[in-house]
Amino acid sequence: MSYAAFTREVERINDLLCTANLLSWDARVMMPPGGVTARGQQFATVTDCARELATGDAMRRAIEGAERELDGVSPNDPRVRAVRAASAGIGVLSRIPPALLSEAATLKTEGQAVWARARAANDFDAFAPTLERTVEIQRQVAEAIGYDDHPYDALVGTYEPGMTWRRLQGLYAEIKSGLLPLIERALAKPQPRTDFLERAYPVESQKRFARMIAERMGYDFSRGRLDDTVHPFEISFTRGDVRITSRFQERWLPGGLFAVWHEVGHGMYEQGIDPAFTRSAFTTDFVNLYAVGGASFGMHESQSRLWENRVGRSRRFWELHFDELRAVFPDQLADVSAEEFWRAVNRVKPSLIRVEADEMTYDLHIILRSEIEAALIAGEVSVKDVRALWAEKVKATLGLDVPTDTLGVLQDVHWSSGMIGSFPTYTLGNVMAAQLFEAALEAPGVAEGLDRGAYDPLKTWLNENVHRHGRSSLPEDTLVRVTGDGLRTDAYLRHLEEKVGAMPDA
Amino acid sequence: MSYAAFTREVERINDLLCTANLLSWDARVMMPPGGVTARGQQFATVTDCARELATGDAMRRAIEGAERELDGVSPNDPRVRAVRAASAGIGVLSRIPPALLSEAATLKTEGQAVWARARAANDFDAFAPTLERTVEIQRQVAEAIGYDDHPYDALVGTYEPGMTWRRLQGLYAEIKSGLLPLIERALAKPQPRTDFLERAYPVESQKRFARMIAERMGYDFSRGRLDDTVHPFEISFTRGDVRITSRFQERWLPGGLFAVWHEVGHGMYEQGIDPAFTRSAFTTDFVNLYAVGGASFGMHESQSRLWENRVGRSRRFWELHFDELRAVFPDQLADVSAEEFWRAVNRVKPSLIRVEADEMTYDLHIILRSEIEAALIAGEVSVKDVRALWAEKVKATLGLDVPTDTLGVLQDVHWSSGMIGSFPTYTLGNVMAAQLFEAALEAPGVAEGLDRGAYDPLKTWLNENVHRHGRSSLPEDTLVRVTGDGLRTDAYLRHLEEKVGAMPDA
Repeated sequence: MSYAAFTREVERINDLLCTANLLSWDARVMMPPGGVTARGQQFATVTDCARELATGDAMRRAIEGAERELDGVSPNDPRVRAVRAASAGIGVLSRIPPALLSEAATLKTEGQAVWARARAANDFDAFAPTLERTVEIQRQVAEAIGYDDHPYDALVGTYEPGMTWRRLQGLYAEIKSGLLPLIERALAKPQPRTDFLERAYPVESQKRFARMIAERMGYDFSRGRLDDTVHPFEISFTRGDVRITSRFQERWLPGGLFAVWHEVGHGMYEQGIDPAFTRSAFTTDFVNLYAVGGASFGMHESQSRLWENRVGRSRRFWELHFDELRAVFPDQLADVSAEEFWRAVNRVKPSLIRVEADEMTYDLHIILRSEIEAALIAGEVSVKDVRALWAEKVKATLGLDVPTDTLGVLQDVHWSSGMIGSFPTYTLGNVMAAQLFEAALEAPGVAEGLDRGAYDPLKTWLNENVHRHGRSSLPEDTLVRVTGDGLRTDAYLRHLEEKVGAMPDA
Repeated sequence: MSYAAFTREVERINDLLCTANLLSWDARVMMPPGGVTARGQQFATVTDCARELATGDAMRRAIEGAERELDGVSPNDPRVRAVRAASAGIGVLSRIPPALLSEAATLKTEGQAVWARARAANDFDAFAPTLERTVEIQRQVAEAIGYDDHPYDALVGTYEPGMTWRRLQGLYAEIKSGLLPLIERALAKPQPRTDFLERAYPVESQKRFARMIAERMGYDFSRGRLDDTVHPFEISFTRGDVRITSRFQERWLPGGLFAVWHEVGHGMYEQGIDPAFTRSAFTTDFVNLYAVGGASFGMHESQSRLWENRVGRSRRFWELHFDELRAVFPDQLADVSAEEFWRAVNRVKPSLIRVEADEMTYDLHIILRSEIEAALIAGEVSVKDVRALWAEKVKATLGLDVPTDTLGVLQDVHWSSGMIGSFPTYTLGNVMAAQLFEAALEAPGVAEGLDRGAYDPLKTWLNENVHRHGRSSLPEDTLVRVTGDGLRTDAYLRHLEEKVGAMPDA
C-alpha cells in the first residue's frame, strides 16, 4: 500500500459523494413526484457505500501505507496534509456507530415530513416528539464524537472545525452589544419607501437580469447552471459542474435577484477550488459524507454573503446598475431613483422570519436559535419549553411578539433535518465576509474595480486567497493568512455601523 | 445468510445502477460542458461498485444461503426465479475479467471521440484502428462468456437472452424475402406528397401536441418527464421515475412527434413493471450492469415500435387526430387532408441513413449491420473490408450507392460504443411488436378502443401481458404465453403487406 492507493480510495469516495450530490440536486430540481421513495433509498445506498469505503479496511491500510511512505516528509507537504485531513475526518466518522447514523438518516426523512405537516397545521406539539428524538440522537452523536467542554462543540465542529460554544458565546455577546444600538439608530431614521419592490416584475426578465450580473461577477455558466427551486441552494459535483438555484417571485423583486447572487458566491467558491484538488481529500468532507470544496460551512457562507450583501447591496452597485435594471423594467421603475432602490433593498425592519430578515437583524435570529439548541443538547432546557423560550428571546432582541408556531419555532427546516449545530455558521459567515472584504479592498485594483462595476479583481483576489485552497486550509488559518488576525467581529460591526451611518437622517 | 440477505444485496446493486442511470441521463440532458471528465469517472466508480457487490463474496454467500433456504420450493416460486435470474446474470458477468471490462469502458470513451471526429471528417480509415480494437476486445468478451456455435451468439445474448446467429439468419432470410417484393410494390405506386412536413412548425407547439397524445396513450407524467436531447432516449430509476427525451426540429414535423411516441412506448413498459419488482433481480440487468425492468432489448423495442408505428402511424390514428393537429397548426396544414398526412408519414423510400429510414426499409439497414458484425467477430472479414462490404450490401438491398463514409459505415454510434450484437434487437422488436399487436387486437375492447382513440384498453392489455412481468419472463416465454407461439415473422410480414395494400394505386 502506498500514497497512490490512498489517492485511489479517496477518488472513489469523492466520486460516490459527488454522485450523492447529483441525486440530491435532481430530487430538488428535476425529479417527478413518483421518484421520492426510491430516491431516498438510492441516496442512502450511495452514501453508505462511501461510508463503508471510508471506514473500511482498505482505506485504513492505505492510510497506514501512505503514512509510512511519507514518514519524514515535511508536514506542509500537500500529500501529508491530505492524509492527515482524511484521517482526521474518517476518525470522527468512525466514532459514530453506523446504527446511530442510520437512525439519524431515517429520523431525518420522517422528521421532515412530520415538521412540514406540523408547520402547515401551526402545531409545535405535533413536532415536539420528533424534536425530542432528534435532540436525543444528536446528543448521542456528540458523545460519540467527543468534546472537551460542551456537547454542542462536537456538533458545531462538524460544520465549523474547531469552533466551540464558549467561543461562540463571546462572539454573540460582541455582536449583540454592537447590533442592538445600531438597529435602534436605524429605526429612528426616516424609513425608505419599498412599495415599488412589490410591483409586477415578469419572472423571465428578472432571471435574465440576475444571470447577466452573475456572469459579470464571474460565475462560469460553462461549469454550472441556474434552475428554479422553492429553496435556493448551491451544490457541486467537482469544480467542473457547480449548480445554483433560485426562486423568482413576480411580486417581490429582491427575492430572486439577491438569492442568485448569494448562490453565485457559493458557486464561485466551488468553481475556484484548485483543479489539483478535484477528487481529493481537499474536496471531500469525510465527517458529513459530503463532496464539497469549501473549507467549512461558515467560510462558504462568507462567500455568499460577500457577493449578496457587500457587493449586491452596496450603494455603488446600484448607482452602477440601476439604470440597467430600469431598462428591463421601465414602467415598474419609472418613478424610482437609484438611491431609493438602494435604500429599499437595505431597509432595516425587525421581523419574525429568519430568511426574510434584513442584514442588520439577521444575526439576532441566528443567535437565539443557537442559544436554544446549545441548551437543548446540554439538557438545560427541554423541548416542551422551547416555544416559550423562543417567544421570550424574540421579544428581548427583536422586540416582537410571536403570534404562531409557524412564524416562530416551526419556521426552519434545520432541526427536523437533524442539523443541530449548523445555525452558527450563518453568523460566522457574516463575520468572516467582513474580515475578508476589508482585506480585499486593500488589494490593488479591487476597490477601483468595484467602483466601476468590474468584479474580476475581487473575484480573482478571492480565488487566490480563499477559493483555491479548498479544504486544505482551515478557516481560521485562512483568516490569519489573509487578514493577519483570526476570527474577529470588529470588521463586521464597522461595516454595519457605516451602513447605518450612510442612511439619510431626513 | 438467507433469502433476505440476497434481497438486501440486490437492492443495493439496483440502487447503484439506478444512480448510474441518473448520472447518464443528467450527462445527456442537463450537465454543463465542464462536467464531462468527472462524470465519466463518477459513472465508472458507481458501476464498478455495483460490479464488486454483484461478484463479491457477500453476494456469493447470499445466493448460496438463499438456495439452501429455498431448497425444495417450486421452481416457479418468484423467490426461486429471482435467485436463479441473479445467479445466471452474475455468472456471465463473473466470467468477464474486470480488466477486460475496464479496457472496454476506456475504449468506449476514447472510441466515441475518435468516431465523432472520423465521422465529421468523413474518414473511415481514421476510425478503423479503433474498430479493430473494439472487435478484438468484444471477441475476447465472447470467448470469456462462452458459446456453443458462433461467437456472435455470446454478444447478442447479452442483449437478447437465448438469441443466436443461426436463428437470426433464419429470421433475416424470411424478412428479406418478404420485404424486398413489398418495397418494390410500394415504390411502383404513386408517391405521396410530403412537402408540408417541412414547413415551419414552432417547436413549443409540436411539443404540446406530442405531450397531449403521450398522456392519452397512458404515459404517466407524475412518474416521468420529457426533455430535449440530440438523440432521443428513455431511461428509468425505478418505475416511479421513468424519463423520456425527444428532439424537435422546426422544419421536420414527424421527427419530434414520432420520437416522443416511440419513447413513450419504452417508458410505459418501465412504468408498468410490477411494483413488487422494484429494486429486485427482475429490474436489474446483471450482465450489462444496467437498471432496467424490460425483459430484453428486443422486447423493449417491441413496445416503442408498437406505439410509434402500429398506433402512431396507423390510418385510423390520423383520421382521429389530424384535426387536432391542424388546430395547432392551422396555416401550415390548411391545404392537407388526414389521408395525405397519413400517407406522408408512411412514405416508403430507400435511404442511406438508418435512423431516418421508413418502417418498410428499416430492417434492411439492421440486417446488413448484423451480417457485417457477425462476420467481423467470427474473423471472416477484416475491418479494412468493411467499407466495401457496406456499399455492396446497401446496393444489393436498398439499391443505393453510398457516396461517403458519413452516410455509410460511420453513421451509427454503436460500434464505437463497443455495442456489437445489439443491432439485431431493433428488428426483433419490430417482429415481436407485430405478434403482440395481433394478439392485443383479439382482446376485448382493444380494437374498439383504437377505433375511437381510447388507448387505455391497449395499454392495460400490454401492462397485464407484457409490462408487469419485467425481467421475470424471458421474451420467448412471454410470446408463447401471449400468442401461443415463439418468435415468428409472419405477423410482421402480414402487417407490412397490409400496409402496402392500403396505399392507393392511383
